[in-house]
Amino acid sequence: METVRTDEETAGAADAGLLSPVWAAGGDPLGDQAWVAAMLEVELALARAQARLGVVPASALGPVEETIRSRPVEVVRLARLARRSANPVVELVRVLTEAVRRVDPAAAEYVHRGGTSQDVLDSAAMLLAARALDRTDADLVRVADALARLAAEHAGTPMAGRTLTQHAVPITFGLKAAGWLTLVLDAGDRVRRVRESLPAQLGGAAGTLAAYQEYARLAGLDTGGHAAALSAAFSAELGLRDPGTPWHTVRTPMADLGWAVVAVTGGLGKFATDVLGMARTEAAEAAEPGPEGTGASSAMPQKRNPVLATMLVSAARQAPAQALVLGQSLLAEDERSAGGWQSEWQPLREALRLAEGAARTAAELAEGIEVFPGRLLENLRLTGGAVVSERLNAALAPLLGKATAKSLLTEAARRAARPGHTFEDALEASPELAAAAHKFTDGQALSDLLDPANYLGASQELVERVLHRHRTRLSIS
Amino acid sequence: METVRTDEETAGAADAGLLSPVWAAGGDPLGDQAWVAAMLEVELALARAQARLGVVPASALGPVEETIRSRPVEVVRLARLARRSANPVVELVRVLTEAVRRVDPAAAEYVHRGGTSQDVLDSAAMLLAARALDRTDADLVRVADALARLAAEHAGTPMAGRTLTQHAVPITFGLKAAGWLTLVLDAGDRVRRVRESLPAQLGGAAGTLAAYQEYARLAGLDTGGHAAALSAAFSAELGLRDPGTPWHTVRTPMADLGWAVVAVTGGLGKFATDVLGMARTEAAEAAEPGPEGTGASSAMPQKRNPVLATMLVSAARQAPAQALVLGQSLLAEDERSAGGWQSEWQPLREALRLAEGAARTAAELAEGIEVFPGRLLENLRLTGGAVVSERLNAALAPLLGKATAKSLLTEAARRAARPGHTFEDALEASPELAAAAHKFTDGQALSDLLDPANYLGASQELVERVLHRHRTRLSIS
Amino acid sequence: METVRTDEETAGAADAGLLSPVWAAGGDPLGDQAWVAAMLEVELALARAQARLGVVPASALGPVEETIRSRPVEVVRLARLARRSANPVVELVRVLTEAVRRVDPAAAEYVHRGGTSQDVLDSAAMLLAARALDRTDADLVRVADALARLAAEHAGTPMAGRTLTQHAVPITFGLKAAGWLTLVLDAGDRVRRVRESLPAQLGGAAGTLAAYQEYARLAGLDTGGHAAALSAAFSAELGLRDPGTPWHTVRTPMADLGWAVVAVTGGLGKFATDVLGMARTEAAEAAEPGPEGTGASSAMPQKRNPVLATMLVSAARQAPAQALVLGQSLLAEDERSAGGWQSEWQPLREALRLAEGAARTAAELAEGIEVFPGRLLENLRLTGGAVVSERLNAALAPLLGKATAKSLLTEAARRAARPGHTFEDALEASPELAAAAHKFTDGQALSDLLDPANYLGASQELVERVLHRHRTRLSIS
Amino acid sequence: METVRTDEETAGAADAGLLSPVWAAGGDPLGDQAWVAAMLEVELALARAQARLGVVPASALGPVEETIRSRPVEVVRLARLARRSANPVVELVRVLTEAVRRVDPAAAEYVHRGGTSQDVLDSAAMLLAARALDRTDADLVRVADALARLAAEHAGTPMAGRTLTQHAVPITFGLKAAGWLTLVLDAGDRVRRVRESLPAQLGGAAGTLAAYQEYARLAGLDTGGHAAALSAAFSAELGLRDPGTPWHTVRTPMADLGWAVVAVTGGLGKFATDVLGMARTEAAEAAEPGPEGTGASSAMPQKRNPVLATMLVSAARQAPAQALVLGQSLLAEDERSAGGWQSEWQPLREALRLAEGAARTAAELAEGIEVFPGRLLENLRLTGGAVVSERLNAALAPLLGKATAKSLLTEAARRAARPGHTFEDALEASPELAAAAHKFTDGQALSDLLDPANYLGASQELVERVLHRHRTRLSIS
Repeated sequence: METVRTDEETAGAADAGLLSPVWAAGGDPLGDQAWVAAMLEVELALARAQARLGVVPASALGPVEETIRSRPVEVVRLARLARRSANPVVELVRVLTEAVRRVDPAAAEYVHRGGTSQDVLDSAAMLLAARALDRTDADLVRVADALARLAAEHAGTPMAGRTLTQHAVPITFGLKAAGWLTLVLDAGDRVRRVRESLPAQLGGAAGTLAAYQEYARLAGLDTGGHAAALSAAFSAELGLRDPGTPWHTVRTPMADLGWAVVAVTGGLGKFATDVLGMARTEAAEAAEPGPEGTGASSAMPQKRNPVLATMLVSAARQAPAQALVLGQSLLAEDERSAGGWQSEWQPLREALRLAEGAARTAAELAEGIEVFPGRLLENLRLTGGAVVSERLNAALAPLLGKATAKSLLTEAARRAARPGHTFEDALEASPELAAAAHKFTDGQALSDLLDPANYLGASQELVERVLHRHRTRLSIS
Repeated sequence: METVRTDEETAGAADAGLLSPVWAAGGDPLGDQAWVAAMLEVELALARAQARLGVVPASALGPVEETIRSRPVEVVRLARLARRSANPVVELVRVLTEAVRRVDPAAAEYVHRGGTSQDVLDSAAMLLAARALDRTDADLVRVADALARLAAEHAGTPMAGRTLTQHAVPITFGLKAAGWLTLVLDAGDRVRRVRESLPAQLGGAAGTLAAYQEYARLAGLDTGGHAAALSAAFSAELGLRDPGTPWHTVRTPMADLGWAVVAVTGGLGKFATDVLGMARTEAAEAAEPGPEGTGASSAMPQKRNPVLATMLVSAARQAPAQALVLGQSLLAEDERSAGGWQSEWQPLREALRLAEGAARTAAELAEGIEVFPGRLLENLRLTGGAVVSERLNAALAPLLGKATAKSLLTEAARRAARPGHTFEDALEASPELAAAAHKFTDGQALSDLLDPANYLGASQELVERVLHRHRTRLSIS
Repeated sequence: METVRTDEETAGAADAGLLSPVWAAGGDPLGDQAWVAAMLEVELALARAQARLGVVPASALGPVEETIRSRPVEVVRLARLARRSANPVVELVRVLTEAVRRVDPAAAEYVHRGGTSQDVLDSAAMLLAARALDRTDADLVRVADALARLAAEHAGTPMAGRTLTQHAVPITFGLKAAGWLTLVLDAGDRVRRVRESLPAQLGGAAGTLAAYQEYARLAGLDTGGHAAALSAAFSAELGLRDPGTPWHTVRTPMADLGWAVVAVTGGLGKFATDVLGMARTEAAEAAEPGPEGTGASSAMPQKRNPVLATMLVSAARQAPAQALVLGQSLLAEDERSAGGWQSEWQPLREALRLAEGAARTAAELAEGIEVFPGRLLENLRLTGGAVVSERLNAALAPLLGKATAKSLLTEAARRAARPGHTFEDALEASPELAAAAHKFTDGQALSDLLDPANYLGASQELVERVLHRHRTRLSIS
Repeated sequence: METVRTDEETAGAADAGLLSPVWAAGGDPLGDQAWVAAMLEVELALARAQARLGVVPASALGPVEETIRSRPVEVVRLARLARRSANPVVELVRVLTEAVRRVDPAAAEYVHRGGTSQDVLDSAAMLLAARALDRTDADLVRVADALARLAAEHAGTPMAGRTLTQHAVPITFGLKAAGWLTLVLDAGDRVRRVRESLPAQLGGAAGTLAAYQEYARLAGLDTGGHAAALSAAFSAELGLRDPGTPWHTVRTPMADLGWAVVAVTGGLGKFATDVLGMARTEAAEAAEPGPEGTGASSAMPQKRNPVLATMLVSAARQAPAQALVLGQSLLAEDERSAGGWQSEWQPLREALRLAEGAARTAAELAEGIEVFPGRLLENLRLTGGAVVSERLNAALAPLLGKATAKSLLTEAARRAARPGHTFEDALEASPELAAAAHKFTDGQALSDLLDPANYLGASQELVERVLHRHRTRLSIS
């Protein structure tokens, strides 16, 4: 007899996120149980669609629904038996059919009518992916809103712009946050576009829907147009796009999903990478939020680790590899791949988990990050003012000649970098530079020219442009 | 003195595609020379945009243009000197400036005014990518047209549908070609979407456009709105999208390019994989086109290798790895990444070459492939008719019970697979099956029921739907 | 109060292999529970090693052991709380300490003494990896033995050698099996080499072992040499290599593990790919083993899918991506990476599961595969004998000239490929070829020259060489 | 007529390293020309081996050698024509044969006797790989020597150990350098092991060496043992390992090469990552070497970018993806893969270039890096002494209780982190901590207990252990 309860062995085999804190959250909407539930949901959707079209009697739906609600499948046993057909659907259908038969033998005849494993598994995968992307998108909206607030608030907060690890020219923290926001908006655009495109799968054994038609014919229906009608009804039941044609070995949706996930984890990974840089003990420009104990070390009392950013980077480093496997799934032979199809499932799940976990983690980070403007300014002054030497170069080249100006300024910047020195002193110490600079400022003090806060370029305008995109939710690319 | 001719050493260092026949074609639009030319084009675009806005005198443009036309750069030397700054632009600008100075010292002052290496290299990369995608798209259109012809012509040509390497149920060759066509249309959609989104890069040293503004100020212009105006003018000169904001470490365009390339090479790789399967000596269902000598072996006179499909698979196996690097480029720190940015260039080039080469190769294959309907039919009959056992199962289950029908048919299929036997014989040899089958056909001959050509499901409709998409060029996802 | 039983929520979050049939087996030695158990084993090993050296009193060991045996940790809760420190060890240590305290408050002081999260997690990972590689190796031995039997048995069984999908020249099935065997021996060598190299991790907070030394000093010990002694004792407790120095951000072991896994899954993937090719309905040269129902389809009674080979390919397509993440783990900053370290765990687990599952699956396949020599011969004759045209080319070129011979033989091969024709007829039909061939055979019948079984080259010797390696278990590379 | 000079078109198609400064160096030992030269070298080695065994007359060698010396091949034309057979060898053999024929028609008959494309291309690839690994290894020795000097010199130079971006406990710069050294030694071990294992390829059309035997038979030789003798002689000519059996679709050498490259670029990437962290403007602990102008920016006079480290990271981010393609090459079907083999060449070349370029770049960096001990110490003091709070925790827990001690120290560390405060002040400000600390030090000053230089753990011993490995060149794993 079939065991119909959730099996105890499961615990021993569980992956509850222990090794992936970025998505671990207790209830796992992409765990094995969730996949089984989604596959049963697909079987029900098929039965309903066929009932709507008259291939299956309405009386069969009740027993099927009731059976599915009773969670008739042992997951660990199912996973083990999946080895016999290299996919879990054959055994799932057997168990489901038996369970329905116990409720209503007549109804059991209509389970999985005309169906094939791939229709069930692919449709379930798209269902779970759609929901995961919806949750991801909702969290991206939170991230975007929080970053927009940061960008607006700090549109005029100067800090050091860094290139190749070195102070380059001043920027504002708002501009940096606007860059993060752009990535989040980009990711959101891609997530929504892919989510809208996710198709149900309905093709039968080799993509001709022949068995579905055959059952329609046996039910006395006109088969002309039946395939299209069934595909439409089935897709509607699932809330997925009706693809019009089966995609058993037309795996664009898998490649698209991988790409959307990379946009999410990569974009948030950039945010995290910058937070890690700002949080370094030497920079100390930002700190992560968190209740007492967050980021604590077991041994070092002084520690407060940037754990949210760390988890975000961990996702960004894993997701592209999973996406690569999904991208390679396009290389599928014949009408169903022997090995290609079966290699998609686990990477797809991991990819979706990473995206979803990253979005949630980033929301926590963006909503709670502390930024220290005083420290930003202090760091900006570390080079003694040489961070505006680009500006001096532009100003003095016409007076001194391009090469001379550059060479004198390089020397001055070197002197200014010494402790206790400033770029202004260094300028004054060079007769040529001093003369030219004073000529340029027309005898006024140099401080205005040398103030980093006066060399922020178009930072303010640029921030405003990104905020405008956020407000209007324009998809730019 | 600067050498202004193309250097002879180049030959020794050349990659002309010897190791990548899929894109080797003689003139390489993505070779080092092409990158140098594109970077010079970008410098010119910047000068023109600044001239339009009054930052650079119109008189400087002539000498710059003239100098660039003279191809002032030695590529091998430039590559070597690029090591000093980890990018080729610093040295390129030096050489260009010197060369302009020899023509017109005054004009030399206006070269690369306010510019930064990344503005030049990123904009050049986008320019080359845009052109490569345009060429790729044009070839994808050829592939699509050829596949549409095949799909239409063979919409009713039966062949064996294969799943997990085994004959499953009949399909038509037209339906298979329609699957290939779907992938090509999907790829084309993604290529065009990404191509339209490719942005120019203009941000200056750290993305604030401060130096560009400074030079505007020195030229007596109002700097309010200057950044936006310059970005628009510069993008227009290059025919690229004006991104509104710099994307120095907002690398969505790189991730997008990788993804578009995977859609191309992967989609065409599926086409090629199927051709390879059909071309296997045992199947012999298709042959590649080609002049005398194509696919020849140096030692085996009988050989005619499917070399086009082979090259397509070689591209499909390489491209995802390059795309992965591009996807990881999102993980860029600060205002310019030390290592991330520099790791994009070579993978981007290879990815674009693979996509372009694959599209061209696929056009050759699709336009010339020979398909042998007689052989398709012969293979379809290899299982002695058991390829329609799914249909029998549907028909006889109500008469025999689901389990009994399946078990008897499995046994009959096993018998039919023996040489000299047919599924019809095997049915007749089983009293239960024979009785049920004759009852089902109401005493008529079984041949209609068993004819694979009568079990093609919705193949015809499905082909028509894909052809409709092709005709109307609808983007479905 | 701490809950000390295995939690029920786990089931809902479980990954029991449903999406990865290649490793699904019921008891999962790499599931979250197994990781928790391994981490506790590491804590015990540390306490024991410290007790041996006098840092921890012997009396503390009993309570710690007893507590660990009681499985004091709820996995799902632990996973969730791992988010607070971006790794599960901080919370694990807290729970363990509390649980020990309930048994013996004094003993609780000695838990995790001087320890750091990474020591625990890395050592646990190596412990699990070592065991997984041992199991993998044992199954590779089974695969190798079975393939050696096949290679020996079929050393003289002719079949078609295929290159670029086309019949090239004859080989033997034994030679093909010897190639598979070589890959399995190669993989076994790499697995054992890496397994032997797997190190324990002991470095403390930043790799100086300072806290371990401090506790030794507080216990009145001489700290000179303590680090070395502790590392040796700890490694010995775990049965892992003593690395001499910590490797917190010296991640060679991770890169090595990834590579060993790729050697396993890739080598077995080649075996599987060939089995899939031989099993294609048109070739029908081999079939998979399996009890009734294996490889069955839910709808198509005639189907017997090669599911073992399919699962092997699914592993081979996934593992390189996981290995890539492990290879990238070398890029770890400072004394502990923020994101790099945390991105290793899940890919490592998946990689090990894939290798282990693949080895077990391959053992099933290799021990039970059926090969059909009659069919091999039949297929070998498909080209009407043209499969030996290379030999004719060698023989006749001296008589006809190289170019003429090749051109005539190409034409003859084309004629021979037609149904009902043979290469011998085609030779006889060409006056030049016929004359040359008869001259070459000195008037004897051509059949010997044309018999594929007479053109097997060094197949027999080559098989023997591989069998010799297998017998002597020589590591060749 | 054949053109026998190096073609001028090459320049336009050249990749001279412009996009990969890490390996750009002018003369490219892995460019297309080098591959052609290597393939010709292989043809010569085959002829010589066959001459030694009596299959080819000694008189044929002179004309072949002479022809090859004349560089008879146009690379760009060859690359283009390689499309006709999906590999460059067929056309190369044709051109070579024609060129030899012009010198000595009789000798031309012996070119490529019994050969197949894959024997030539694979052997050439191994030849180039062996040489590239030799060069790489030589530079790794330079890197190791330089790092050993640094580790020895700075074995006692204290600096902050950082974990998850935060100061953790003190380490020494010597210990950090010893970690880099370990990675370089690990990489060197792997490079040498793989290099020794690189095999020549000799198998003929499908791995049976049938044609080689046939020509031996036609030359009147005993064919028993000929295959083994020829393989040995051929391998000896090339200085490569004699594999005993062909490896046409036994691609372990490719997977191994990828792995060795990742060990090199990844290990050096860690070195570079740390240098980048130390070079950040805020840390300013290290600077790169370089002549005037190195690391300069075109616009910012103050800039001195860490360009060597940047190039190293760029290699480390690209190489794993190339290695992945090589690892996937194991998945090769039949006796020669249609697409798998052809996808190896370009990734192999790029991987080797990246490894070689990285080793050379790292030698420059390691030999010239400047480290600033004063700055290391200054940064170590940034937390006001809290960097030794782990030590205080160990010392005071027995006096205060574990929980109380941790909580008080956490609070003290927070206070100490404020500008102008020290951990010592904070301790004194807490009556409980002060009392416990003074009790611990037995009334002595706290400064010894709080001095980071007194909490270096086993740093010195650990450095010595790594230096010992370096001196004795022990392979540890």
